[in-house]
Amino acid sequence: MAIVVRNTPRTALDVVDGLAEAGVATVHEAQGRTGLLGSRLRPIYRPARIAGNALTCEVAPGDNWSIHVAVEMARPGDLLVVTPTSPCDDGYFGELLATSLVAHGVRGLVIDAGVRDVADLTEMGFPVWSKTISAQGTVKETPGNVQTPIVCAGAYVEPGDVIVADDDGVVVVRRLNAADVLAAARARVQNEAEKRERLASGELGLDMYAMREKLAQRGLRYEEHPPS
Amino acid sequence: MAIVVRNTPRTALDVVDGLAEAGVATVHEAQGRTGLLGSRLRPIYRPARIAGNALTCEVAPGDNWSIHVAVEMARPGDLLVVTPTSPCDDGYFGELLATSLVAHGVRGLVIDAGVRDVADLTEMGFPVWSKTISAQGTVKETPGNVQTPIVCAGAYVEPGDVIVADDDGVVVVRRLNAADVLAAARARVQNEAEKRERLASGELGLDMYAMREKLAQRGLRYEEHPPS
Amino acid sequence: MAIVVRNTPRTALDVVDGLAEAGVATVHEAQGRTGLLGSRLRPIYRPARIAGNALTCEVAPGDNWSIHVAVEMARPGDLLVVTPTSPCDDGYFGELLATSLVAHGVRGLVIDAGVRDVADLTEMGFPVWSKTISAQGTVKETPGNVQTPIVCAGAYVEPGDVIVADDDGVVVVRRLNAADVLAAARARVQNEAEKRERLASGELGLDMYAMREKLAQRGLRYEEHPPS
Amino acid sequence: MAIVVRNTPRTALDVVDGLAEAGVATVHEAQGRTGLLGSRLRPIYRPARIAGNALTCEVAPGDNWSIHVAVEMARPGDLLVVTPTSPCDDGYFGELLATSLVAHGVRGLVIDAGVRDVADLTEMGFPVWSKTISAQGTVKETPGNVQTPIVCAGAYVEPGDVIVADDDGVVVVRRLNAADVLAAARARVQNEAEKRERLASGELGLDMYAMREKLAQRGLRYEEHPPS
Amino acid sequence: MAIVVRNTPRTALDVVDGLAEAGVATVHEAQGRTGLLGSRLRPIYRPARIAGNALTCEVAPGDNWSIHVAVEMARPGDLLVVTPTSPCDDGYFGELLATSLVAHGVRGLVIDAGVRDVADLTEMGFPVWSKTISAQGTVKETPGNVQTPIVCAGAYVEPGDVIVADDDGVVVVRRLNAADVLAAARARVQNEAEKRERLASGELGLDMYAMREKLAQRGLRYEEHPPS
Amino acid sequence: MAIVVRNTPRTALDVVDGLAEAGVATVHEAQGRTGLLGSRLRPIYRPARIAGNALTCEVAPGDNWSIHVAVEMARPGDLLVVTPTSPCDDGYFGELLATSLVAHGVRGLVIDAGVRDVADLTEMGFPVWSKTISAQGTVKETPGNVQTPIVCAGAYVEPGDVIVADDDGVVVVRRLNAADVLAAARARVQNEAEKRERLASGELGLDMYAMREKLAQRGLRYEEHPPS
Repeated sequence: MAIVVRNTPRTALDVVDGLAEAGVATVHEAQGRTGLLGSRLRPIYRPARIAGNALTCEVAPGDNWSIHVAVEMARPGDLLVVTPTSPCDDGYFGELLATSLVAHGVRGLVIDAGVRDVADLTEMGFPVWSKTISAQGTVKETPGNVQTPIVCAGAYVEPGDVIVADDDGVVVVRRLNAADVLAAARARVQNEAEKRERLASGELGLDMYAMREKLAQRGLRYEEHPPS
Repeated sequence: MAIVVRNTPRTALDVVDGLAEAGVATVHEAQGRTGLLGSRLRPIYRPARIAGNALTCEVAPGDNWSIHVAVEMARPGDLLVVTPTSPCDDGYFGELLATSLVAHGVRGLVIDAGVRDVADLTEMGFPVWSKTISAQGTVKETPGNVQTPIVCAGAYVEPGDVIVADDDGVVVVRRLNAADVLAAARARVQNEAEKRERLASGELGLDMYAMREKLAQRGLRYEEHPPS
Repeated sequence: MAIVVRNTPRTALDVVDGLAEAGVATVHEAQGRTGLLGSRLRPIYRPARIAGNALTCEVAPGDNWSIHVAVEMARPGDLLVVTPTSPCDDGYFGELLATSLVAHGVRGLVIDAGVRDVADLTEMGFPVWSKTISAQGTVKETPGNVQTPIVCAGAYVEPGDVIVADDDGVVVVRRLNAADVLAAARARVQNEAEKRERLASGELGLDMYAMREKLAQRGLRYEEHPPS
Repeated sequence: MAIVVRNTPRTALDVVDGLAEAGVATVHEAQGRTGLLGSRLRPIYRPARIAGNALTCEVAPGDNWSIHVAVEMARPGDLLVVTPTSPCDDGYFGELLATSLVAHGVRGLVIDAGVRDVADLTEMGFPVWSKTISAQGTVKETPGNVQTPIVCAGAYVEPGDVIVADDDGVVVVRRLNAADVLAAARARVQNEAEKRERLASGELGLDMYAMREKLAQRGLRYEEHPPS
Repeated sequence: MAIVVRNTPRTALDVVDGLAEAGVATVHEAQGRTGLLGSRLRPIYRPARIAGNALTCEVAPGDNWSIHVAVEMARPGDLLVVTPTSPCDDGYFGELLATSLVAHGVRGLVIDAGVRDVADLTEMGFPVWSKTISAQGTVKETPGNVQTPIVCAGAYVEPGDVIVADDDGVVVVRRLNAADVLAAARARVQNEAEKRERLASGELGLDMYAMREKLAQRGLRYEEHPPS
Repeated sequence: MAIVVRNTPRTALDVVDGLAEAGVATVHEAQGRTGLLGSRLRPIYRPARIAGNALTCEVAPGDNWSIHVAVEMARPGDLLVVTPTSPCDDGYFGELLATSLVAHGVRGLVIDAGVRDVADLTEMGFPVWSKTISAQGTVKETPGNVQTPIVCAGAYVEPGDVIVADDDGVVVVRRLNAADVLAAARARVQNEAEKRERLASGELGLDMYAMREKLAQRGLRYEEHPPS
């Protein structure tokens, strides 16, 4: 009863690459603080920063069969996104699968479960964001859906959405919004450069953002420490 | 209803710096195994070892406004200590705030919540101990107390107490005890150097600490493994 | 009422060293996916890969006394395995104990609890897999069993079983099975080399493992994405 | 930037009520083991079993403002589903809000966060499934979306989908599938009645489901315990 | 090195009893949303609602010796508050200690650790709020402080502060503020009675609290669902 | 590669029943504070207290096939003990399997995973201790070992060991020690009755156990609270 959807649409790779450059925190802000995957997903090595078209894959608990199915659907610039149908920490993925994905142009893996062979994956430079690291192997008995909409670490992901991942975590950008979000992210980066310079010179955020009056209105008051 | 206390007392920086040199485990021992913050606080990069005067700050869940307020209270040698009024994993702090803190002489951050921009913070060499890493942004709607006594990760902290943080975790030293604790820590370091040498030469702790009799009294007994 | 068993049997060190070379994931597979310790045990630095004869030790919560007892039982090639009698995150172990263990030929530590002095341990190159890192010290009031069978992180371990530990986690191999497991692991490594080459050349796992028919039998079907 | 969508479609209440009668485990099976919300959602009292049309609501961390907005959108037979935009355990909901919801025909609450006044809610018979129980109050500063698609405890929920909740947890049924799922659930209930009778009489599942041959094929074998 | 402080001040019992009547959520609100202990503390049976003067006690991990010391310090109307010096889930407390406490007028227990004999404690009607339930016994080797200020489940507690506990959790009220907080709590209860009536009659919170304009200012907008 | 062992030995039921009467905390003490399963195992309803001969069963993650195999091995007085080969929270067990077990004389279930149909199981009076409650169903693709030694929730269990379970948790007693443990437990119960009477009359544990001198030796000292 599992489905594989062929020829799902992708986001243009120049947009994808622009979002990678902006990074997760900026992209998340640029789209109104939405789309973040749960902070339990952590990179297996740091620093790492990539983006790719979501190649989605559901797996049964303790069963990685559908990852093999997903490889065939891969296109260059994809990023594999794997979610178990119920929580599982097993090591679904290792260096053999990474070797196969690299051969088909896949840039990395985001998985709300475990991975193994992390020393090899680090040496290969294949970036992975996972919930855990575990040597526990998996079986191949129950296929899962590939290239269908999924929920991964609390976020809704459709095939061809952009996944951006770096040391801060992972964010998804809807395919149809990706160009707009990229524009907003670039504007944000520019705006922050100016702020950074002023803050570095010692200017207070209280003044730069004109916060003092609003803080007083919300009840903030200052008092002196009693002489000790 | 939030308060900012001005001109709270600090601990002398030579004492602070001496405690940094001793490190967390030694300081914790030197003050009778008290003052440790919960082990959920981990450094965003390693190795890292600092100490500073606690600049305390409470934040509402998902709201980092009072961190901006705290910056103005900073003095060189301070270390910002942030605690949420209820548990929250959001990314309250990033490289812009770090830039601002550095400009005011703050040495690092201890936060019982999340941070972001960790790749940038690592590159800047701005050390942070946090409960989590998360790109999730925060709002500025509800101010919290600054420079009042707080509980952070299970430990009671007053402004101007010394915070020591390294790869092992974070410990707080009461301001009025800091000089005594430093003296005890230094004695401890000296004492350990001698023990280290004896242990390295193969002497057993059982003998060096004269434990055998007490172990027997507490019921320890030895038996031979049956021949296999 | 605690027991120390002397002269427990060990596994031959050439077998132990062979298992280290194979690594945790391969050894785990080679013995039918059994023997893995819980994935909460993580190395304090990476990369790290060792194996040794289990030198087992039970500790009371917040009490590391029996680790001192265990040192005397150590033989070159041992790996200390410590489990608390109820869950505890305290820092049971630091660089003084490591110095002592190194002097007696112990290769590393696996502990389902906390360690401290991790900067020093890293510098010494003494590998540790632990549940947590914590500066919290422990007392010496209640001895525990040494060199008796234990459960550590969910796995049953007897003295002289082989413990293999690397970046993926920790696995135990029964002493009497160790040679067979090593043979199976080596066969597995060889077999994977060939697979790796085929996958790197772009061959699909679906074809290499002849999965397509079985997938169809289990209900996998393909459909086209509707034109967007 | 928050949105409230008016006049979202609902599922017919006779279908909703039929799904309540079937219960969570049966409904989950009847739709191919999909749609379950995370098992961290637990009822505040037991037994409890309800179903309703999802009235969806996003809340900022520590901020329950949009729940007040949601009440106005309620129709009889609705079940309020609340998800925070980042994880939060605060007590977003208490008996005053329950009183208001009851006045508008809402049948219960599913919330991936905390609730309070649980003694009062229990006495009122207002069923709640929550991640935690906490007296921690919330502010009203940041509105969130109401009646838009959300992810709650890992499951994707659209307004008007059917939420079924009982002692086993919470499941969502897509609005357009609800009638089909109800039919499948009813068939399943009937089928189980017959099985129950056979099992109660002592018949083995091994025989009733004809499992023995397949088990042998998958490698199961029987051996005698050696005489002890 | 442990201390027992005799003759610490208490709060008047009529104030304590008034706070019990108000309950945790109301008291927490009445003192500006401060003083809540972590929501991991849960009652062993429900419903339960009490208040008492904090009789504080620190315990070493896996060691309940100082609870015996605390009993002697008890006065009628006290409520024992126990915190471990590092996290521990052992069963520090059972029905024998409860029998002893009852004989000295103690009303209940709040413990950031484990308890056992919960069936007996339930039958006795001795209310306990704990982090866990565990049969794991403890030793008597290391005394801890009694009647000194402590941090329990993240909250700072001094002897003689008022502890209020019910099905929603546990809150601490500073001794010197207790009468004022009681007055504020009573005002709050009265005010809520009126609101409850209006909400029960179907009035919307949006109108009762006059929220519509502020919501619009913060960016909330309404739209119609497209015809389906 | 899974094994079922026939005709494993059991413990005599009069001993088993005596241990049930003593309860978990007493049995745990009577055998030197060993054998406790992790406190994450909680009863689905309270009060509950049973004991039985361990009927052991390993299950693959998300796969309950071997539970069906275990039913055939059951004898009256058994208690089913299930452990997953890697952590899993799925609902492995429901009322149909309970019906089958009851028909074969099994008294209850201990499972380090999830169960479902808890309302039905409660109504049937079939006691279960589990790690979680979840409606998530499981598959039948991979058999596991039945009636072999296992580790369940951190404790080593052999078939025919006695499992005692009540509101405090679960403990295992080695088959060959069971009669001795029962004798020790009964002595303990008698001894506690006398202590209970003395404590109820107001006698302090400090005096009854003659603790004062030892406490002073370990550094406990008393001081007066300064006049406030």
